[in-house]
Amino acid sequence: MKKILAVTGIRSEYFILQPIFDEIIKRNDLQLKIVVTGTHLSPTFGNTYKIIENDSYDIIKLETLLATDSLSGRSKSIGIQVMGLTDIVLREKPDWLLVLGDREESISTATVGTYMNIPVAHVCGGDRVVGNIDDSVRHAVTKLAHLHFPTTKENGDRILKMGEEPWRVLVTGNPALDSIRKQPDLTYEYINKQLDTELSIDKPFILLIKHPLSSEIEEAGEQMKVTLEAVAELGLNTIITYPNSDAGSFDMIKVIDEFTVKYKFIKAYKTLPRDIFVNLQRKAALLLGNSSSGLLETPFLKLPVVNVGNRQKQRQHAENIIFVPHNKEQIKDAINKAIYDENFKNICKNCSNPYGDGYSGERIAKTIAETVINTKLLNKQIVY
Amino acid sequence: MKKILAVTGIRSEYFILQPIFDEIIKRNDLQLKIVVTGTHLSPTFGNTYKIIENDSYDIIKLETLLATDSLSGRSKSIGIQVMGLTDIVLREKPDWLLVLGDREESISTATVGTYMNIPVAHVCGGDRVVGNIDDSVRHAVTKLAHLHFPTTKENGDRILKMGEEPWRVLVTGNPALDSIRKQPDLTYEYINKQLDTELSIDKPFILLIKHPLSSEIEEAGEQMKVTLEAVAELGLNTIITYPNSDAGSFDMIKVIDEFTVKYKFIKAYKTLPRDIFVNLQRKAALLLGNSSSGLLETPFLKLPVVNVGNRQKQRQHAENIIFVPHNKEQIKDAINKAIYDENFKNICKNCSNPYGDGYSGERIAKTIAETVINTKLLNKQIVY
Amino acid sequence: MKKILAVTGIRSEYFILQPIFDEIIKRNDLQLKIVVTGTHLSPTFGNTYKIIENDSYDIIKLETLLATDSLSGRSKSIGIQVMGLTDIVLREKPDWLLVLGDREESISTATVGTYMNIPVAHVCGGDRVVGNIDDSVRHAVTKLAHLHFPTTKENGDRILKMGEEPWRVLVTGNPALDSIRKQPDLTYEYINKQLDTELSIDKPFILLIKHPLSSEIEEAGEQMKVTLEAVAELGLNTIITYPNSDAGSFDMIKVIDEFTVKYKFIKAYKTLPRDIFVNLQRKAALLLGNSSSGLLETPFLKLPVVNVGNRQKQRQHAENIIFVPHNKEQIKDAINKAIYDENFKNICKNCSNPYGDGYSGERIAKTIAETVINTKLLNKQIVY
Amino acid sequence: MKKILAVTGIRSEYFILQPIFDEIIKRNDLQLKIVVTGTHLSPTFGNTYKIIENDSYDIIKLETLLATDSLSGRSKSIGIQVMGLTDIVLREKPDWLLVLGDREESISTATVGTYMNIPVAHVCGGDRVVGNIDDSVRHAVTKLAHLHFPTTKENGDRILKMGEEPWRVLVTGNPALDSIRKQPDLTYEYINKQLDTELSIDKPFILLIKHPLSSEIEEAGEQMKVTLEAVAELGLNTIITYPNSDAGSFDMIKVIDEFTVKYKFIKAYKTLPRDIFVNLQRKAALLLGNSSSGLLETPFLKLPVVNVGNRQKQRQHAENIIFVPHNKEQIKDAINKAIYDENFKNICKNCSNPYGDGYSGERIAKTIAETVINTKLLNKQIVY
Repeated sequence: MKKILAVTGIRSEYFILQPIFDEIIKRNDLQLKIVVTGTHLSPTFGNTYKIIENDSYDIIKLETLLATDSLSGRSKSIGIQVMGLTDIVLREKPDWLLVLGDREESISTATVGTYMNIPVAHVCGGDRVVGNIDDSVRHAVTKLAHLHFPTTKENGDRILKMGEEPWRVLVTGNPALDSIRKQPDLTYEYINKQLDTELSIDKPFILLIKHPLSSEIEEAGEQMKVTLEAVAELGLNTIITYPNSDAGSFDMIKVIDEFTVKYKFIKAYKTLPRDIFVNLQRKAALLLGNSSSGLLETPFLKLPVVNVGNRQKQRQHAENIIFVPHNKEQIKDAINKAIYDENFKNICKNCSNPYGDGYSGERIAKTIAETVINTKLLNKQIVY
Repeated sequence: MKKILAVTGIRSEYFILQPIFDEIIKRNDLQLKIVVTGTHLSPTFGNTYKIIENDSYDIIKLETLLATDSLSGRSKSIGIQVMGLTDIVLREKPDWLLVLGDREESISTATVGTYMNIPVAHVCGGDRVVGNIDDSVRHAVTKLAHLHFPTTKENGDRILKMGEEPWRVLVTGNPALDSIRKQPDLTYEYINKQLDTELSIDKPFILLIKHPLSSEIEEAGEQMKVTLEAVAELGLNTIITYPNSDAGSFDMIKVIDEFTVKYKFIKAYKTLPRDIFVNLQRKAALLLGNSSSGLLETPFLKLPVVNVGNRQKQRQHAENIIFVPHNKEQIKDAINKAIYDENFKNICKNCSNPYGDGYSGERIAKTIAETVINTKLLNKQIVY
Repeated sequence: MKKILAVTGIRSEYFILQPIFDEIIKRNDLQLKIVVTGTHLSPTFGNTYKIIENDSYDIIKLETLLATDSLSGRSKSIGIQVMGLTDIVLREKPDWLLVLGDREESISTATVGTYMNIPVAHVCGGDRVVGNIDDSVRHAVTKLAHLHFPTTKENGDRILKMGEEPWRVLVTGNPALDSIRKQPDLTYEYINKQLDTELSIDKPFILLIKHPLSSEIEEAGEQMKVTLEAVAELGLNTIITYPNSDAGSFDMIKVIDEFTVKYKFIKAYKTLPRDIFVNLQRKAALLLGNSSSGLLETPFLKLPVVNVGNRQKQRQHAENIIFVPHNKEQIKDAINKAIYDENFKNICKNCSNPYGDGYSGERIAKTIAETVINTKLLNKQIVY
Repeated sequence: MKKILAVTGIRSEYFILQPIFDEIIKRNDLQLKIVVTGTHLSPTFGNTYKIIENDSYDIIKLETLLATDSLSGRSKSIGIQVMGLTDIVLREKPDWLLVLGDREESISTATVGTYMNIPVAHVCGGDRVVGNIDDSVRHAVTKLAHLHFPTTKENGDRILKMGEEPWRVLVTGNPALDSIRKQPDLTYEYINKQLDTELSIDKPFILLIKHPLSSEIEEAGEQMKVTLEAVAELGLNTIITYPNSDAGSFDMIKVIDEFTVKYKFIKAYKTLPRDIFVNLQRKAALLLGNSSSGLLETPFLKLPVVNVGNRQKQRQHAENIIFVPHNKEQIKDAINKAIYDENFKNICKNCSNPYGDGYSGERIAKTIAETVINTKLLNKQIVY
């Protein structure tokens, strides 16, 4: 019976991890505890730890997020996190640490695992999102982690090129698809009641998720504004979820709040229940913004995407995505194309999907369970 | 005028950095502040911050080292360090962060630089020391740092293979050689007076430096014991400096103290002044243990090395080094060979030196001064 | 030349400290640095460090506030603060620490001063505000501090009874009155332009400041609601400033935002410039809520006060204050009395003022400058 | 079933708390977890957490002690402790916090309890030890704690004078006496075997415990030296235990090590098992130094004490104690008096004992179990 200590710091990350948690729980050779930290414990970001608690997992709270949107606040929070995680690991004595992606939680957890000699399993490594510190952090975590579960072959190959030993790398697909696969269909009625909206099958609506870039913090508010102006001029129903807690997000939220007061057809939510969110993805005419789900999840759902700005630009993607700069007219044109251009809509319906088959969680849980913890696992060697 | 904030956590690291500091100070387009942290501020490790203070640098003290030799203590200290460094960077607003190697300070500093958008210059990256978490940490720092100053071509090539952009990498040689080059010769008389020893040109003596391995903590005391038994049986004058503050060091120090009480010809020192240490390297018959100076500095000095155990084993080295396991007889044989085998001594005298010409500091200072700080520098891209 | 390191964590506290800072700056035997921390560095609370920066003081930023309104968040922030303050004190080597009141900053600073052997001057000790942890904290700080500057004779007597040596205690009056005294008069026109209001001499308006109680966190939102309902039913112009960052404040802010959207005559501000605020106090018909300025400042200004709830209840006050529970009708009655009852208004005009003459800052600065730092000062003795 | 979270940071404190723990465990309406922190987890101080672990209590490790003997190190460790304790309290949700005395742990725990609204029971408050920051800290903890268990009537009265409500104060006696009472007698043979000594009933021996004073750090080494010179000149068997981890202790330990190497009849131990220590107290001719056990425990044991220096000077004590300054001849005279002056030895045999009857633990456990946790308990009021 091996004990896995997973660490999650933000809602979006939790939704990718959750299908893995599900499969861990199912096995009788693994047990799971989850450290909830970062934005999960902040009312500003919707106290999303409650979602995890409601999902009946065994959680340990670790408050780390400083009440600032400065760069120093993020950096200092990592120190607070490393301190608290160390205390928890010392107490829990887990066999494995499990972490995902490229945020503060991943570098904190990988550092603690490395120094405390606990193997670290890393999900979603090898990816590439140019124009962001996330790339540096993700690759640094790869150099610290002991098992790698990249979502695509391209990402797995990148991990190998960085010198990781091949037996440490397993391409599993994106676990987020597992949860989309399993999510039951909801009616418009149900959704409208939950969100206080008037969505219907006759009226195309936009799902909008947009995060600030660490390299373009000063422009964050303006970038949100130009995007919402495009939406407002088109007069299309739009559902927004709030950006992540990165530097710049406060400015974005301020702009969102102004638009939702002014335009009734634009609605914003701090956070959305997972079942609602997936069904919105199924029913929306397009996904607008720069969310990573635009690349990762939409090919599985065959949903058109309009990606605004530099984020996600150089990442692996399918044919269902249109890239536009922060220019109102170009955004409007792209939205119109995604909704009305039958040719493009057809391409989307048949687009390729590099992100797997919706059975990633099972593969990851099985591999962790079956990997022997020994010196070979713990002593990493670069292959060249 | 660019401000450089360098971070150092341990004596051995400071001695490699110091020649760079010297060259930074000389330039009128750079200014320098040094954060002294980690073992530098611990009386157990000789309060070595005083060396840096005496060298007249402008220092900022940051206490981080927990009074434990547990793995958790090291891990938690990193959190304390990230918190304190962030506060200091917020206040100092440096243009560059400068850090070396693969210890706690390097991963802390690189993380803070990454999240606070300050470029990080990393010295001694790309190296490979199998059997230790240092490798993981060093390569993770490489993935975070913005300029790389590896000491050898082999190390530089390894950095390039990991996907770093070529313009970020400059092979400079090992800065420690700069300081060896500049160090004046001291007489036996002077050294004996300082150390309360009776060294002389007629009697070969051993310089012994041995550190614990993170993967062999439990054996640390025993490893030191077997090494000292070999020395004791040979009855050779031996000068020891204490191990680093890694897990296991307390056990090693206990063994050292037992042997120095028992054998007058074995002497141990918490720390040695740099000028004394270099002159001991020049005058010793061999360097024994597993110190990295055995690989890095001895080819420049043409000093024979007996490396005991797994540390340093797979690193790049010259022909002046004999590798032996923790076996008393094999250690004794190797010491005898290093002192008495004329053939081997001849090889040492003519050994190759991959670690440069003693002018590394100048190259590093110049490159930092001349590198423009812009988006290209700050937004790292992996080449594949 | 003695160096004073003052610590401030919240706007309200800064406004009381600022007149002392002014007098410190004026003296040529004292120099001042200010650590800005806590809510000052949070966008949620208006980034009020900028006010201090604009006042041209030499500030050191220390980010400590966690992005939560949980009790644990407050507690953990104190740990972060003690760590950061220690680093700063180690570096700055101040001769004195200066702190005020009963918030996190006061206990952190007094603890650091005690352990680092730096004398601590404490302003506003000896006060009593039942129904709040503030009392415990304030009295604990008194037991740690080396000089006490209570605002009233009653508070000074309480400090003496707690066993403090009499020579450590000087009743100075409330420094906040210094700044009220010095604040120039502003016209309605100017104020209306700044606040986007339509205040005038003919229309009585309410100034509303209400904070959550640590012992009544669950009721915080409801308490704000009943207060605002009273105001809404009377239809009186009302100017609100946001509550402090204590647990419960998020709920209060939510209620405030609902009312300001609904009623045009209710306006809320995250923070108000000091000159505007003082002039609103001079011009308002009454102060409503539970702000400490209701007790401390209004007798000097002869302004009627309606204090709602348990906060401030057992503190020393003058005759210009009406205490009411969280009952809408009683609040309305009290407001009407404060605005229209000529007899009560007359009492207010002639009320006593236990809080001093507006020259407290000068007394405090002088006493610190003239107190010799020796063993007698540093070794505290209880008198019984 | 109420959960009590006790916090202990040092061996000496644990031995006073342990009898309370014993009584808590015995009750079926209380459960106990113990946070071990501070020096307990440092190899320099003997890793004394193992004693607690061996006593079969349920412990939670919290590493906090910085590897320095600077004042800043102590101060910063408090911040680390507040952070870690907060995390633990958030997770454990205890009904009570239990803490003792005047060290870092007491102020950390009382602060966390105050801010997290968990009642704090404080043992050994109200005491007075002039010439030390301990007094300030102890009284500050009294102002934060919710129940007080002073050891003597004099201390209880002091707590009441400080304004605490009488129902919060119960004089219980010193719990350390419970454990002395219960400790079985050991033979000289057994002790000699354990300690590698040659103690016997015919040869008077000295038990020496001496700690540095925070106000006399610079003199710590010299103070130990003059005390040991007195002992050395008298040639009496002497058993030393190492000082606490306060600033100055490193210098003291250095001096101790010099004397134990030089004089075979002087023996020093990092730590002693409790049963050995109590039996040494029973058999010793006198207790020398400045240990608080000299005042607290010796009247119960009728053991003569020679207290050197300012520590303990103004504390409540019985007639069995001789106070001398750091003067070799005066120390020698006092030792001779304690061993050979029949009159003084008679006084010691019949001395009064203000510290109770050895049944304190039971009283404390019972009171905590029976105290209702409500607003009255949590909302502290000063009585004047």
